[in-house]
This record gives sequence, C-alpha cells and structure tokens, in this order.
Amino acid sequence: MAIDPRFYTSTGAATLEDWAEATGARLVGDPSIAVTGVGAAQSAIAGDVCFFEGDAKDLAGISRVAAACVIGADLAGDLPSGVAALVSETPRRAHMKGAALFFALKRIGQQDGAVHSSAAIHDTAELAPGVVIGAGAAIGARTIIGANTVIGPGVQIGEACTVGSNASIQCALIGNHVTLLSGLRIGETGFGVIPGEHGAEDIPHYGRVIIQDHVSIGANTCVDRGAFDDTVIGERTKIDNFCQIAHNCQIGRNVVIAAFAGISGSVTIKDGARLGGRVGIADHVTMGRGSTLAASAGIFRDIPDGETWGGTPGKPIRQWLRETAWLQKQASGKKTPS
Amino acid sequence: MAIDPRFYTSTGAATLEDWAEATGARLVGDPSIAVTGVGAAQSAIAGDVCFFEGDAKDLAGISRVAAACVIGADLAGDLPSGVAALVSETPRRAHMKGAALFFALKRIGQQDGAVHSSAAIHDTAELAPGVVIGAGAAIGARTIIGANTVIGPGVQIGEACTVGSNASIQCALIGNHVTLLSGLRIGETGFGVIPGEHGAEDIPHYGRVIIQDHVSIGANTCVDRGAFDDTVIGERTKIDNFCQIAHNCQIGRNVVIAAFAGISGSVTIKDGARLGGRVGIADHVTMGRGSTLAASAGIFRDIPDGETWGGTPGKPIRQWLRETAWLQKQASGKKTPS
Amino acid sequence: MAIDPRFYTSTGAATLEDWAEATGARLVGDPSIAVTGVGAAQSAIAGDVCFFEGDAKDLAGISRVAAACVIGADLAGDLPSGVAALVSETPRRAHMKGAALFFALKRIGQQDGAVHSSAAIHDTAELAPGVVIGAGAAIGARTIIGANTVIGPGVQIGEACTVGSNASIQCALIGNHVTLLSGLRIGETGFGVIPGEHGAEDIPHYGRVIIQDHVSIGANTCVDRGAFDDTVIGERTKIDNFCQIAHNCQIGRNVVIAAFAGISGSVTIKDGARLGGRVGIADHVTMGRGSTLAASAGIFRDIPDGETWGGTPGKPIRQWLRETAWLQKQASGKKTPS
Repeated sequence: MAIDPRFYTSTGAATLEDWAEATGARLVGDPSIAVTGVGAAQSAIAGDVCFFEGDAKDLAGISRVAAACVIGADLAGDLPSGVAALVSETPRRAHMKGAALFFALKRIGQQDGAVHSSAAIHDTAELAPGVVIGAGAAIGARTIIGANTVIGPGVQIGEACTVGSNASIQCALIGNHVTLLSGLRIGETGFGVIPGEHGAEDIPHYGRVIIQDHVSIGANTCVDRGAFDDTVIGERTKIDNFCQIAHNCQIGRNVVIAAFAGISGSVTIKDGARLGGRVGIADHVTMGRGSTLAASAGIFRDIPDGETWGGTPGKPIRQWLRETAWLQKQASGKKTPS
Repeated sequence: MAIDPRFYTSTGAATLEDWAEATGARLVGDPSIAVTGVGAAQSAIAGDVCFFEGDAKDLAGISRVAAACVIGADLAGDLPSGVAALVSETPRRAHMKGAALFFALKRIGQQDGAVHSSAAIHDTAELAPGVVIGAGAAIGARTIIGANTVIGPGVQIGEACTVGSNASIQCALIGNHVTLLSGLRIGETGFGVIPGEHGAEDIPHYGRVIIQDHVSIGANTCVDRGAFDDTVIGERTKIDNFCQIAHNCQIGRNVVIAAFAGISGSVTIKDGARLGGRVGIADHVTMGRGSTLAASAGIFRDIPDGETWGGTPGKPIRQWLRETAWLQKQASGKKTPS
Repeated sequence: MAIDPRFYTSTGAATLEDWAEATGARLVGDPSIAVTGVGAAQSAIAGDVCFFEGDAKDLAGISRVAAACVIGADLAGDLPSGVAALVSETPRRAHMKGAALFFALKRIGQQDGAVHSSAAIHDTAELAPGVVIGAGAAIGARTIIGANTVIGPGVQIGEACTVGSNASIQCALIGNHVTLLSGLRIGETGFGVIPGEHGAEDIPHYGRVIIQDHVSIGANTCVDRGAFDDTVIGERTKIDNFCQIAHNCQIGRNVVIAAFAGISGSVTIKDGARLGGRVGIADHVTMGRGSTLAASAGIFRDIPDGETWGGTPGKPIRQWLRETAWLQKQASGKKTPS
C-alpha cells in the first residue's frame, strides 16, 4: 500500500540512505534506492519501507517487492532477496520515526475560504451553511452535505450521497448513494499505543477509509482509517449509531450492524453477517459469511460461516443459552435428588 | 399520525389511484380518495396510507380511519370497512416506495443565510457564532443556542432552554427549560433495514421527536425520530452522555438514564424508572413504573412496576446475584462434601 | 477548590448573610464573612461554602478552612471550629440554590466575532475555518485547531497541540503536545440528579478539566468537568474513541483506555493501568497502579496494584476464567461420575 498523496504530504525524494540516517538503523542494501511510501510488512508495495517484529516463521509473509524492511539483527539476513534491511533493535519505533519524518497528514488549516478553491464541487451538489471543505476534495452530482460538516483535503464523495450535519470526514474515498448521518467521524487516526522513551506514544496511521456504494452509517459512529492499508465498508452495509469500526477492518457487503458495536482493529466481517446491539469483537477476529451475533456478545474467536453466537466470552448461541438456563436452574436451589 | 408539514414536504394532492400506480399495488377501493400522509397500521389517521404484514389475528389492530392499507392478497378482504386495500406481495416495500415518492424530509440546503429568514428567533434568545437554523424553525425567549449547532427546518424550541455546541436537532418539538448538551443528535432517521432487490435497504422514517419540559440530555447522545409516530421524552427525564434512544421510544417522566444506555426501537419506559450505566433494552420491551435496572443489564422481557433487574439476559436482581454468587462458590472448588 | 473565574462569573461580594437569605438556611456564625466560592466538603478552601449530608463519623473530613457548611440541624454543632453553619433540612439542595444564585457558567453568546477579541491566539497557532473561541481563551504556539471546533471562554490550550474538527472544549486547562480528535466533548457538565420539589433536578457542576502534556483522546469521547473539583487526565495517558470520563475522575499517567470505557464519577485510576474495550467502572472505585481490566469487565470494587480483573461483576481474571470454564463444562452435560 503506497501513501495516498491526496491525504498525505511527502517530503519528496528520500532514499534508503536518508531512512538509515533518520531512523538510526543500519542499512544492508543499496543506499540510493528511492522510498515512496510506507506499508505493512505483508502488503508493502514497490517503493515502500515496512517493519517486522514477528517470529521467524512469519518471515515468509513479508512482501517481496518492498524497498526495505526495518527488522532486528537476528532476522535481517532472512528477508526476501531484493528487500533491503534497515537493522534496528526497535523496528516498529524506528519505522514510526522515519515515517513521521517523511510523510504527514494533510489538514485543513487557514485556507482561502471555508470551501478550498481547489475543491471540485459538482454543480448539482448542495452545501449547507458552515460546510468546510479542504484542498483537492471532490463532491459528486446531487450529493448533499449538511450544515457545519467538515470534509478533509482530498476526500472523494460520489453521486447522490447524503451527509448529515456536524460530521467530520477525512482520508476517505466514498462511493455513490451513500448515507452518512450527523456527527459521524470517518478517517480519524486509529488507536494504538507503544512504549516510548518517555512513556506511552501514539502509533501514527497512514491509511484510508473506503466506503462503497449504498452504504449507510449512523449518527456519531466512528470509522477509523487504517494504519497503512484501508479500512473498508462494503456495498449496502448498514451501520447504526454509536458504532466503532477500528483501523484496518474489512467489512463485507450487506452486513447489518446495530448500535454500540465495538469492532476492534483488523477484524474481518464477511458478506451478509448480522450484529446485534452492543457486540464487541476482539482484534484480528473473522466473522464468517452470513454469521450472526446476538446482542451483547463479546467475541474473541473466529465465527464460522452461517453460525449464530452469543455471550461473553462468545460461543455458539445454543451453548450460551444452555449455560444460562443451567445456571439459573442450579442456582435456584431446585436441585435434583442425589 | 399524519406527516408533519414542518418537517416533511409533500408533493401535494395524491390519490389512491396515484399510490396504486406508484407502488404497483392493486387498488380495491375508491381511486379518487385523497392521501395526505403515511402512518403505522395501528395509529394511522384519516388520509393516511399504512401497511400490514402481520398475522390475521392482528388485523383488528388496524386503524379504522386509514385511507388505505398496503396488504397481501390473502388478508386484503379482511380490512376494516372503509379502509381501501392496496394489494401487494411486498406490502412494506411497496409502502416505502409510495412514501418516498410523495413525501420527503426537509433539509437545510443552500439557504439565504446561516439563519433562514423565515426562522422565528425570539428577541431575548441568544445564538452563538456558527449556529445554522433552517426555514420555519422557532427559538423561544431566553433560550441559548451554542456555537456551531444546527437546528433543522421547522424545529420548535421553547423558552429558557440551553443547547450546547456542535449539536444537531431536526424533526423535533422541544418544550421549555430543556438542557441539551454538546454533540447530541436529535431527530436523525431511525435504524431499520429490509432486504431489497439489490440487497439491504434503509427503512425511511417520517416521524418526530417530542421533548417535554425540564428534560436534560447529555453530550453526544442520540434520540432518533419515529418511523411514523413520535419518539417521546417525558417531563424532567434526565439522560446522561452516550445514550441511544431509538425510534418510537416512549420515555415517561422523571426517568433517570445513565451513560451508554442502548434503548431499542419502540421501547416503553414508564415514569420514575432508573437505568444504571450501559444497560441494553431489546425492542418493544416495557419497563414498569418506578422499576430499576442495574448497570450492564441486558433486558429482553418486560419488567413489572417497581422491580429491580440485572444481568444479561436480565432477570430480577436477587436471582442474578444468587446465580453469580452460586457460580463463584461452585467454581472455586470449595465443594460441599457429598 | 475555588471557583475559577476564567470559567464562571460571580455576582461579586456575597456574605454568609446573603447565603442565608438566598438558601433559606439558618446561619450560625458571623454574617459578614465574605463568600468567594463553593466547594466539596472535603476540599473546600478559604472563602468557600460547602455542604454535608454524610454520617457523623465523616464530619472529621470536612475542610477546616471553609467559610461555611450547609448542614442538618443535628450535626451543625459538630462542625470544625471556624466553619460557620448554614442549617437546612436539605443541605445539598440549599447549597445548589445558593451556588446557582451567586455563580454562573460563562458561555459563548453573541460575541464580537467567531474568535473573541480578547482571546490570545499565538502567531504560530493555526485556526481552521469555522473555529469559534470564547473570551479570554488562549491557544499556544504551533497548536492546530480543526474546522468548526468550539473553544469556550477562558480555556487554555498549550503548545504543539492538535485538535480535530467539530470538537467542543470548555472549562479546561490543556497542556502541551496534546492530541484531541474530532467530535470530543471536554468540560461538559457532569451527570447528577436529585429529587426536587417538582421532580428530578440536575446537579450543577462548577469544576474544571485538567489535561496534562502528551495526552491523546479519541473521537467523540467525553470528559466531564468536576462538580467542584477537577477531572484530571495525567501525562501521556491515551484514551480511545467513545469513552466516558465522568466528573471528578482522577486518571494517572501512562494509562491506556480502549474504546467504550465508562468511567463513573470520582473514579481514581493510577499510573500505568490498562483498560480493555467496553469496561465499566462504578463510581468512587480505585484501579491500582499497573492494574489491568479485560475487555467487557464491569467493576464495582477497588482493584489492587498490578492485578488483572475481568467479568461482570468484576473479579480477578483467573477466577473469572475458572468460573466461565467450569460453567461451560457443567452445562455441557459431561458430568463427572458421582
């Protein structure tokens, strides 16, 4: 995944030599190679620098086209051929330091008007009072943007969309016929913390949010942008108020998510899944195609296609119901004769 | 319930003939009858078209004054006399199609200033910078509207109210001495999804929100408007931050609701009820007068007047406490001798 | 704790005689003593009026320097010497009545521009379009305020901070290098309800929010101001989206709080604690230094330093896991032979 220049600025032509200097890492590779982006180890594209802190067995998952990988000394020799090594004792932190030096989020600052002169607003689009739009953003035909909503630099919104009031949208590509209610936050930085020299530090995010056609998202809901890759909401998926869709989630098509869902980072939810109210899903979990979560479920494991789960920790719904019924019976004191 | 013309536009004089044509339904009745609104089957008033997808035993609940009811062929003959039938294989979807053709939400668009010239702002009301107010809205004496708050077309706010900043209010009638904190969302469309030809579709909402005198509602809380009828918050009810009050809820007087409450659609909460933090209530449930929910409760059944419930699935608090204590004792391995 | 004049106006020189008249309380003490603030019984400073509704055994905790204490007749004679008594049958309500008469929150009203002429904006600070700033607020060097964000009167924001869009900040002192995402609400009134003559009444809040250096707070999160004292977020603490930090919470340094945390009033969380997603903590609970909460935990008791707890009601994690495993095994019907 390259850095999308619509959402992030680049300092320009950095080389691996520049990265070695900036991060304090020792370069094993050609110092003149140009770096054009940062990426996750598995999805880095040509020109990206990524990092690796996993086990030796996961080395095979590292992208074979990355320009370089920031990695510990013990594993540096096992990188795919063609991927330069930036050797560091703290790969993630060194990578963060380099990324922060060479790339930066575009923000709306003191600009030439509430709607930036370089924004492309279709003649038939309608902007209510107080709308603020950043440089290079585009709003499609017949799309309505509600009062006091803020659209960040480079955001692309398609045709016949409706956006409510007081919403904030950045780092996002949004399709057609999308409905976004008031107060939602799309494209904020994801939540991630690592220990630094002086205490807790935020992990910066360089990804995007992709929202496909006919999606609807409720009031005050948050969809965070990916760390390096995209957070994706698939076609016709419907999300209620107060949902948290964290960085890098992959939500399929025709998924229905009721209020207060907490979807942690890198969760995959396949087409047609249904989530009852106030469910929580731990990071990296996959919900199968057509699977269902009962209200209040807390899920820490993958759910197979078509199954219905409930409870915390989550389990197949029949098992959960059996357990609650059994407990109720036992605790009621109506014991069977021994 | 008629469509309130302060919040929705109408295309004007539609007849049952027009509805039959628009929805593809077969009309059994007088084609010249005028349609002035849409409503729920049970509460439709004269001039409304409603729909019915229930069981034959519930036919008796259909309003006897509705102009027409969209209904399946098998039950069409059993409608109350005087109610015309619009016969369809998919009554709800056909009704949605007709409603969307003849009625539309009024939105703030490109208007003649941040505060529309037709809005009635009392001389003693105070609007902070950035406030946007739609056509036909009214703000009463000594009411203060915080910065960057958006008040939709037709919204009526009474006297001596205080509204925070960055809030969004639409389709709402608000009494006197009401306190609404920053970032709340009142009158957004409710959440409802039905399968359509191409996948999931949103169910449109044509109702309102009624907030009575002396109510207080916390920051970032959402109160959705009703599908056809009203969502009502009764006098002196106090609601904390981050609560979700879904479409058609009927909340009584002097109810106290702590943070993160998830109140699903069509829930009734009677006077004086108290809800601890992070409770969830399933749709159509009734909480009795003076009843109490312990924090974290998840309620799927009606709660009688005056009772205190807890746990998920919710049950009387003593039973829940007995179960948790019994489980703790049993699982600790301190078994009684057999 | 005195009333901070940056955030609250005072009617000027009130005496204990004025308070007695305003509240209907009977004064036992010098009527000419000047009142300069209101405070909680334990932390009232010189010039404050506080109130007491506790047990006789807690009288020793009342500040010895308060100007006066509103208190019931039975305990009025046992106040620390030097603290005048304002004798009332309803101390809290009488105190509320007096406080509301003599002190009031400063709000942004119809002011001399979106940014008040008395606000001190550093030359290198950057304000995006639509930002509204109240009288006497200050924004430090290199700080960026996002579009349509509202900064209340008297708010102090330090250097190199980043504030997102559509956020609301009032009654707050904010350090340097602080990151505040879009849609957050800092300094709203806390949630508290008492029975009044006509039904439920809001408890007013006169405190502040203190946010120390390098803190990050997520989108749509709420941090309420204290009742009389401060709500404090310590250095480098990182808080995710959708968290509720209620009035008077004391959050230490390097604390990490995942999404949907519900931290009730007057909770203390010590340095280095970690809170998984969707935890709830009841009021007045203390989480020890370096302690951890598993996702979905609901905590009603203090957690010792370094321990990990989970479940609802919360308990040590091993105990909770043992209980869930035991229940699963028993309910599965795979009983051990008797």
